[in-house]
Amino acid sequence: MTLHAPYDPHNIFAKILRAEIPAVKVWEDDEVLAFMDVFPQSEGHVLVISKTSTARTLLDIEPAVLARLMEATRRTARAVQKALQPDGFQIMQYNGEAGGQTVFHVHFHIVPRWSDRPLKGHSQAPMADAAALKVLADRIAAALD
Amino acid sequence: MTLHAPYDPHNIFAKILRAEIPAVKVWEDDEVLAFMDVFPQSEGHVLVISKTSTARTLLDIEPAVLARLMEATRRTARAVQKALQPDGFQIMQYNGEAGGQTVFHVHFHIVPRWSDRPLKGHSQAPMADAAALKVLADRIAAALD
Repeated sequence: MTLHAPYDPHNIFAKILRAEIPAVKVWEDDEVLAFMDVFPQSEGHVLVISKTSTARTLLDIEPAVLARLMEATRRTARAVQKALQPDGFQIMQYNGEAGGQTVFHVHFHIVPRWSDRPLKGHSQAPMADAAALKVLADRIAAALD
Repeated sequence: MTLHAPYDPHNIFAKILRAEIPAVKVWEDDEVLAFMDVFPQSEGHVLVISKTSTARTLLDIEPAVLARLMEATRRTARAVQKALQPDGFQIMQYNGEAGGQTVFHVHFHIVPRWSDRPLKGHSQAPMADAAALKVLADRIAAALD
């Protein structure tokens, strides 16, 4: 998948936004959605996406959408930190297949890190149990500002 | 270094901002600076920082600063893409030592990726030659919107 291509309305995040497939949501409003990554690289791995944009990568995202998305990412990261108390966390945003992107709807990863726990590879982690993700999502949601 | 600690005005990015140590700059304005990572994980690895904030991590960054920083990151990434034509690129932002952070002044990494070139490890790459970085910085600057 190249960096420059039309938006595919059948990508899995578009399907989540249309409620065609389930997701374990942390929080949402009219513009953004934060939900648990179903292949978590670590406990509490959350994704943040725009509901309003069909940008595929950072190259084509609208500046106002990006600002809103980053503010939502910051807010969610603060809640992840408060709820799960990791030793640190990483924000990652991948562009293009060579850049590690697997779903072509712009998204930010929030990946908590603990000093004594190795990171699972991106798109190499096993699929998580939805009930276990729900427990984490509820803890993070309860810690939102 | 913990996530929560006072800002250290002697961190290397603070020194760069005070022109106490050199950096190969791509572009700057009154609020932000984009410059070449001296330990590039790939060719064209750029860092974007705020000139006005003393936030250490995403946890304590001011929302307006974050919005400005992300817009600068987007602008710079578009120029990197146009100038160097990588197959993809990654945006990374590390928080806390466990999160891979080595300099405690919030910064965003723009790391170009090529399908046939492995990524060098963060803070494991060899130091780059300043003259070679300058050539890349000039090419990226020339491609800015």
